[in-house]
This record gives sequence, structure tokens and C-alpha cells, in this order.
Amino acid sequence: MSDYKAPIKDSLFALRMFGHLNDLAASEKYAQADPETVSTVLGEFGRFFEEVFGPVNAIGDTEGLKWSPEGVTTPAEFKPAYEKYVEAGWQGFGADTAYGGAGWPQGVYCLASEFMSGSNAALSMLPGLTVGAMELLEHWGSEEQKEKYLPRMVTGEWSGTMNLTEPQAGSDVGLSTTKADPQEDGSYLISGTKIFISFGDHDLTENIIHLVLARTPDAPPGTRGISLFLVPKFMVHDDGSLGERNDVDCVSIEHKMGIHASPTCVLSFGAQGGAVGYLVGEPNQGMRAMFTMMNNARLSVGTQGLSIAQASYQKAAIYSRERLQGRAIGSDSPGPVPIVQHPDVRRMLLTMRSQLEAMRNLVAHTAAALDMSQVTTGEESEGWTESLELLTPVVKSFCTELAVEITSLAVQVFGGMGYIEESGVSQLYRDARIAPIYEGTNGIQAMDLVGRKLGIRMGGAIADQFGRMHATLDEFRDAGSEFEASAQAFSSALDQLESTTAWIMEHGMADPRDALAGASPYLMIFGYTTGAWLMARQAMTARSDLEAGSDDAEYLEAKITSARFFCEQISPKVAGLVPAVTAGHEILYDIPEEQLTTF
Amino acid sequence: MSDYKAPIKDSLFALRMFGHLNDLAASEKYAQADPETVSTVLGEFGRFFEEVFGPVNAIGDTEGLKWSPEGVTTPAEFKPAYEKYVEAGWQGFGADTAYGGAGWPQGVYCLASEFMSGSNAALSMLPGLTVGAMELLEHWGSEEQKEKYLPRMVTGEWSGTMNLTEPQAGSDVGLSTTKADPQEDGSYLISGTKIFISFGDHDLTENIIHLVLARTPDAPPGTRGISLFLVPKFMVHDDGSLGERNDVDCVSIEHKMGIHASPTCVLSFGAQGGAVGYLVGEPNQGMRAMFTMMNNARLSVGTQGLSIAQASYQKAAIYSRERLQGRAIGSDSPGPVPIVQHPDVRRMLLTMRSQLEAMRNLVAHTAAALDMSQVTTGEESEGWTESLELLTPVVKSFCTELAVEITSLAVQVFGGMGYIEESGVSQLYRDARIAPIYEGTNGIQAMDLVGRKLGIRMGGAIADQFGRMHATLDEFRDAGSEFEASAQAFSSALDQLESTTAWIMEHGMADPRDALAGASPYLMIFGYTTGAWLMARQAMTARSDLEAGSDDAEYLEAKITSARFFCEQISPKVAGLVPAVTAGHEILYDIPEEQLTTF
Repeated sequence: MSDYKAPIKDSLFALRMFGHLNDLAASEKYAQADPETVSTVLGEFGRFFEEVFGPVNAIGDTEGLKWSPEGVTTPAEFKPAYEKYVEAGWQGFGADTAYGGAGWPQGVYCLASEFMSGSNAALSMLPGLTVGAMELLEHWGSEEQKEKYLPRMVTGEWSGTMNLTEPQAGSDVGLSTTKADPQEDGSYLISGTKIFISFGDHDLTENIIHLVLARTPDAPPGTRGISLFLVPKFMVHDDGSLGERNDVDCVSIEHKMGIHASPTCVLSFGAQGGAVGYLVGEPNQGMRAMFTMMNNARLSVGTQGLSIAQASYQKAAIYSRERLQGRAIGSDSPGPVPIVQHPDVRRMLLTMRSQLEAMRNLVAHTAAALDMSQVTTGEESEGWTESLELLTPVVKSFCTELAVEITSLAVQVFGGMGYIEESGVSQLYRDARIAPIYEGTNGIQAMDLVGRKLGIRMGGAIADQFGRMHATLDEFRDAGSEFEASAQAFSSALDQLESTTAWIMEHGMADPRDALAGASPYLMIFGYTTGAWLMARQAMTARSDLEAGSDDAEYLEAKITSARFFCEQISPKVAGLVPAVTAGHEILYDIPEEQLTTF
Repeated sequence: MSDYKAPIKDSLFALRMFGHLNDLAASEKYAQADPETVSTVLGEFGRFFEEVFGPVNAIGDTEGLKWSPEGVTTPAEFKPAYEKYVEAGWQGFGADTAYGGAGWPQGVYCLASEFMSGSNAALSMLPGLTVGAMELLEHWGSEEQKEKYLPRMVTGEWSGTMNLTEPQAGSDVGLSTTKADPQEDGSYLISGTKIFISFGDHDLTENIIHLVLARTPDAPPGTRGISLFLVPKFMVHDDGSLGERNDVDCVSIEHKMGIHASPTCVLSFGAQGGAVGYLVGEPNQGMRAMFTMMNNARLSVGTQGLSIAQASYQKAAIYSRERLQGRAIGSDSPGPVPIVQHPDVRRMLLTMRSQLEAMRNLVAHTAAALDMSQVTTGEESEGWTESLELLTPVVKSFCTELAVEITSLAVQVFGGMGYIEESGVSQLYRDARIAPIYEGTNGIQAMDLVGRKLGIRMGGAIADQFGRMHATLDEFRDAGSEFEASAQAFSSALDQLESTTAWIMEHGMADPRDALAGASPYLMIFGYTTGAWLMARQAMTARSDLEAGSDDAEYLEAKITSARFFCEQISPKVAGLVPAVTAGHEILYDIPEEQLTTF
């Protein structure tokens, strides 16, 4: 039995601070998104996943998947859970209302998706990937394609996949070789092998809509010659009924460290001569289309990190109050006492909790930037888009790096029991480890931040971001002596973020290797400092709620403590990372390659 | 097929710097331990494990163990591997020569045991636990017990176990309730349940000698009432032949995250009325006896962390030279190039490599302190013992924390492939995660460092340690401009270690909770600074070898680069941890327990 609880209250708190719900509700597009309605729907959403997806999470890990030439079979308990999900209509949560979606804002969707993924990360990948596929079709599909495929995807009856990776083409998608031969009827025959295709085959939906990157015969080399194709598992007749099986097969599934119930497929296209595919968008514009989807997918993976880490915190916190060991320090009582009373256990819990809150704030703020960019115009809209672009790699990497740390702390709180699979925290530790890898490794994200995002508007976007942080810092400094140490720590982190940013922009001009050599630690500096910024706002919001006479004092005081702990004890990690950012690339290349592999 | 290579050259380099082999060889006890002979034996030892234990490591992970009421069955490939180990006589490597051991010094044994564990961490736990049991018997057993049990353990024909943990008694051993009822013949009948007993049952040896903590009927409560008993799986006749089965059963084994081939047993003693046990040492002195063994066991677990992390580095380094993705930054060549050419991959490799070298130096220095304490007398010997005591918790925790980080980096270098079990790095990541937990969690180690070790000789031991570090720093500063940045970084780390130490000693007097609240980050500060100290010595040794005209220039230059990288880019992490040490305990207790588990 799962004991996962959707952190509904924390999500609403984050949305209230960063979700701009009143602004969104005043817009035509998101008129329904007033705080009260959002509160109701988040509550329902959270309870659904607690009750339906949560209880089959451990089963999925233990039983895993079965592969046969006919396809992939998921654990028996998954089918009824997914059916309930379809019945409840949750698949259309964030989808366009024109095709049957509920059209909730991205901020609301992201925080809701935390509940889904937190209850069952493996199973939740199926709906999550369908969302990505729907987004692609919404943006780039023809009207005919949208009408034919989207309505059944919005219900969840059909699922979607993303087919980018090939054995020789991972981070470097431009190396892909899958072919698309044009046919006289305007369709294409797709042939090639794609790997690492999550839910590339399964038995939970009637049909699977594969979105596949491939090359037409005359395409230029590299990423500029890649087109996007829609390849259904079963052909779809014009009346919407399913026809014969297309020429795409799952030839094997991977044996993975975690997310055991999420099939990672090798898909073979065209073993019988070619899988029928339909061009989505313009020829050779496949990468552009994929990038549309990738930003949201990266927010989703960051949120997945948050979600798994939150689930592990819950288990650790509960266990720490149940497990009796040792006596209380400085007490005469013989004990044993619950281990939550020991300072080091308390430190682990607060380290987890405060970082989780910072991560959730970061997700809410970044996803809301997308929403705000859509309901505003001109420079204001561009400013929100810049925020989104700048922070997306930080959400993806920072949240997934911390997810690995936090799930590891959960294992540690459990001690020996944490290493035993029955505890459930081992699964979460294993499940979390994929998040720094897929949807662009964290190293790729760091290169994106340094190589693309810092340069937005000649550095104007990052300068504006620093301006917003300084405004909060000024306010925080004036907010009273209770926040003095926190404001000092935030200020110090911000100084170091600014100085490392300046170093990178200056040295990166002369030699891009110098900028990239420190990109990963720089991204973490960015994350910790941004976390401190958002936690400063959390502390001030909670304090003003208290001063306004809230009847939820204990919760709000805890919010302040978390924020202070993050600023005062977590964000100083920035100082430990600065030398790695400003050291340059030369020392990294001092040791010849041969020597690196001489043991 | 395993590609593990024993890092023989690096081990010899560490031993040359820190092993005091010439001093040891000048002693009667370790006359054989001259550098040349050590070099030969380490080479043989390393090659044996590369060839015999390494190739069955992945099999052990995949196949795991089978349990039946008759006991635990290991993978079929383990038996011939272990038989070769017994034939080769390696079990007695560090054991007392009086009972057939080879009597190599602890420093040599520890660095050799890295090869064993690095080749196959799960299987290596069997010999490792036997070593611990032999040490206990050597120190505390009666002459009769030693003669009866030790010779067959030294050959590896019989194995040994440590039985401390019970369901309600983990870190808090004093809560254990296993009973020992005295019999008229001087033996005891043991009854109770022990959990987490590694290799508590298996099919690789003829007999298993369990060392068990239990209470006699009149024993005082807590740790002062615990005695140590020897409980053989099969009774041993006076002529050494095996008799009937004793009343101890493996009633189940755990399903674990990693070290799948190491059986973690629930042992039931006395289900048929009582297992025959023999008191080892004096009544109620069981904890004292266990502590003898625990120091070495903690060095072993630290070494295990090093070993698994080293294996993961090897895989990652090789893969990074094979895997082609992307183009070289700043180059016009279209690529793809081996990913080792990318700065971020290079950073990951150097982060792994430099930390591994620091860890190995730390293990060598600490283990050699034990050896030196045995071949010196008076104050000199006491000084070495103090070093050993002070650094043992640092070896255990620092090396195992870094092992989790390093194996995670190896997964990251592999990208998506790292999450697939076939890569082998996933196993290493899972195997490594136990090391921060067992043999005293890292939190317990930190409490030991702060609560017991800083106070040795009223702070005299730590003051002497700082003195040694300052002496190296002075030398390093004078060693030329090449080391200027490294010396500056080491100096800064040392300053911060000294100031946090002073803070803890001062505040811990007034309220021990303040000392313990920051114990874990303090231990990491201690580790990074000690690492910088030993890496400074490495850099200077390598430089002077080069100046003396060594013909191994590329290797020595790489040693200098690793040392500089550790000092300049890793040891600065100290700065990020200081605020957590000096914050005190109060904020950790601000949030009420109920609020911690309200989601």
C-alpha cells in the first residue's frame, strides 16, 4: 500500500506566490484559473493519484514488464489504474480546449503533474509523453492531423511517443540516419531503428502515435536535414476506426536501474518494407518542432525530480518518527527515542524539505512564465519568454541533481532498511537517477544555459533576472532582523552568481571552452541562488500571512524556517563551486587521453 | 566479461608516500614488507582478482542468491572462484603468522583489499568478514579457541560473521536482547534473532563461525551488559572434524538495492532450544571486543567505497574514449568526436580521478598509522594510534560519501546507457550505496569524530594533526609557483577546518547538540582538507621524482594535475559547508515533529 500524499497545500502556496493566477484568470484563455477553482481541481487531482496510481507503484517496480514478439505487457494492476485515469478525463488537463482538453495553465499543470509522478513515476511517463506528443501536434500538425489524432489522445485512449535517439545518435541528434522515403500518395515510408523510446510499446492504450525524426532522401546532413513524422502503431481510417498494424515493432526492452514499469523500447521501423508515416510541419524543420516540445518536456523532467524526491521525503519523515534508536542528546531519559530527535536526522530532513520547497517554487515560477508570456503582449510577453528560456535548463538540471541527493538522504534516514527494497525508498533512489540523464543530460542543459541562454538579448535577459533578484534582496533586507542572516546569505550567493556570470561571458568570448569547462557547477550556482531568491519571497509571504492573522500559524512558521534554512545553510554551497567555474579549461586537458585509461 | 584492472601502480605510489614500508621492513614484525616484495605481492594479488573475482561480478548481480530452508545458494560461478581464492592462500594475507597467516601490514592489506572489492564487492564481503572475525579471535579468544578455529579460517575453508544487529537494535546496539544461558559445561545456549548478517549463510565454505553479541541472565542493561560468543554453524570436534549442525538457521534473506550476491541474512538462534556458544573474552566486555574489530572494519568499508568508485571510473573513462557524439568545441571538424574531448565530460573524469587518488592516499595513511603504532613505542606509538583513531571515521564516511558521488558521475558519463544494467555502472552505483550505511552509518561516524575523537588528549591529537598539515603547507608554499594556487586553496581549507573545529569544541561544551548538529558537514570539511593535505604531498613527491629524472613522466605529471585539481577545484567545497557547521542546533528543531509529517 502506498502512503504517498499529494502535497496539495504546498503546491497551492507555491502557485499563490508564483502562479499569477489572478492575472491568468483575468485573461480569456485562462478565465477558469481563479485561485479557488484551481484549489478544487488540484485537490481532486491529487487525491486521484494518491488512490489510483500510488498503490500500484511498488508492484510496477517489483513485477516490471514482459516482452514478447507481440509487444510489451505491463503489470496486470496497471490496466485498471490507467482506465480509471482515462475515465476521469485527466489526460486533457493542460490540453487545448479546441480538441477536448481542459486547458489549465502550465503552472497549474506542472504542479499537478508532481502529484501524478510522485505517486508513480514509471506509469506517469505514459500520460506525460502523450502530453508532449499532443503539444507537438497542436503546434505543428495540419488541421487534418489534429482532427484525426488529437481527440483520442486528449482522452488518453491513444498514447504518444517521441522517437529521437538512435544507437549512434543520443545527445547528438544530428547523427540520426532513420530514413523517410516519399510515396506518391504524399505519405512516407519510414525505416530505421530508434532506441530508448519510453512507452514505445505497451498494452494500456488502443493505439500509439509515434512522432519520429527521420531524413528524406535529399535532406542536408546534420540537424538541418531532419524532418518530423507521425507514425501510428495501427493505421487510422478516415472514420477514426483502427486499421491494420503499421510496420513498427518493439524488438526489445531495456533492463534498467529503475522506472521498471516504464518500457524503454528499441523500435524497429520498416522491417517489412517501411512504416507508413506522415510529415508533420515542413520538411527539414523537425528539430525546430522538437524544440517546442523539449522546453515543456524539460520542465516536466525537473518536476519529475521534485516529485520523486518529495515522495522519498515523506517516507523518511514518517520513518524517523517511528524508528526508535538511541537516547536524546543532553537528556537523562534512557531512551530509545524516535530518531527524528537526533540532530543529524533532523538536518537530513530539513535539507530535504527546504530544497523540495525551493524546487517547487522554481517549477511554479518557471511554468508560470510560460503562461504569462501567453496572456501578455509586446515587451512584457517577451520578458516572460526570456525568463522561461533562461530558467528551463535550471529547472531540469538543478531539480534532478537535488532529486538524486534527496532520495539518497531518504535512504540514509532509513539506515539499513533503506537498502532493502521493501522500504520503498530504494525504488525512489533508483527511479530518480534517470532524471539527470534523459531529455538532454544535465551537462547538455548546462551548455544550453551558458552557450545559448546567457546570450539572450546580448545578456539583457540575465541582467533583467539579476534586477529582479536585487529587488527581492532589498525587500528582504528591510523585512526585519529575523531575516538578517538569510538576506546576507542570499546577497552573498547573488554576488557570486553575478561574478561567475561575468567571468563566463567575458572568457567565453575569447575561448568557448573556458565557458563550457565550468558550465555544470555554474548551473548549480544559478540554481542555489535562484532557490534563495524564491525562498526569500516565501519567507516574506509567510510572515505577512502571519501578520495578517492567518489561522495556520504552524504551517507558515515552518515555511519560514525552511526558507531560512535554505538561505543560510544550503545556498552557501555556491561558495564551494565558484573556483570550478573560473578555473578555465586548460587543467581539464592536462592529462592525455591515454593516461586517463591507463590503470 | 569484467574489464576491471587493479590500480596496482597507484597503490604502490600511495604506499610509497604514506605506507612507511622502510620503517616497517626494519621491524621484526614486518621484516618482509620491503617495497620490492610488497610490489611483487600486490601485483600478484591484483592480477588474481582481475582474473578470478572480476569475471563473476556481473553474474552475481544478475543471478543473485537462492534461499531455501536448508540455506543460501550462491551463483554457480562463485564456488570455483572462491575455491581458487582458498587455493591461492590469500585469506591469510594480513593474518597473524602464528596461525598460518602471511602477516602483511594493514596498509598493504587495505590497498590490496581495494583490488578484491573493486573486482567484486559482493563476493569480497565473505573474505572481508572472515578477516574481521579472525581479528576478534586473535585479540580476545582463548588459546584453545584460537587453535581450534583460526587455522581453518586463515585458509578460508571456514568463514566468519559478525552478529550485532537485531530488529530493534541497529545503531543502538545496547538495545539488543539475544540471550545467552550458561550451561554446566561452561558453554552457553544462545537464543534470539539477528538481522542484516552478511554471509550469515552460504554454500562457499564448510563451516561458518558466527561471532554473536548476547546477554547473560544477570547482565546489566545497555551496552555494558553485552558479551561476545562464538557460535559455529557446525559443531567442531576436538580433532577438528565437523560434528552436527548447531541450532542456528537462516530464516530469510533480504532483497536489496545492490550487492545482490552478498546474502543479508536473518539468523535465528535457538529455535530448537538454544545454539551452543562459547564466551569470547570476559563477560560483559562484548562491546569492547567489537570495537577492536570495528576500527578495521570501518577502514575496510571506506576502502570498499574507494574500490567500487575506482571500478566505475575505469568504465567511464574507457567509455568516454569510445563513444562518439558531438563535435569538438572551437574546432571546424564536423565530428563526431569521442566524448572525452568535451569539457564537461573531462570535468567529470577529473572529479572522479582526483578524488579517488585522495581517497587512496587517505586509506594508505590511516592504515599505515595502525602499522606504525605497532612497530614504535611510547609517545611515538601513541601518536600513531591517535592518528588512526582520529582518521578512521573520516576514512569510513568521506570515502563512502564520495563513492556515491563518483559512481553517480560514472552513470552520467554513460548517459542513457548508464541507466541500463548491461553497462555495469548501474550495478556499481547500486553496490556503492550500502557503504554510507553499514558498519556505523556516516551520521554515527560524524558523531564519533566530533563527540569522541576531537576530545582525544584534551584536543591534543587534533592539534598535532593540524601541526602536521601546517608543516606540509609551509613546504608546499615553498615548492614553487606551479603550486601557488593549490597551496592557497589548501591553506584556505585548513583555516576553515581549524575555525570550525574551534567552534565545535567551544560550543559543544555548552550544548552537545550544537556540536552534533553540524557533525556531518564538519566531517566532510575534515575529509576535503585532509585530502588536500595528502594531495599536496602527492604533488611534491611526483615533482621531485620528475626532477630526479624518472622515466615515467606522463604518469607523474598526471599525478600532479590530479593533486592540483583536487586542491584548487574540489577542496574549496569546504567553504560551502562551514555555515551548516556553525549554525547550531536550534533551527533544526524549529519545525514541530507533527508538522514534518503533515503533507
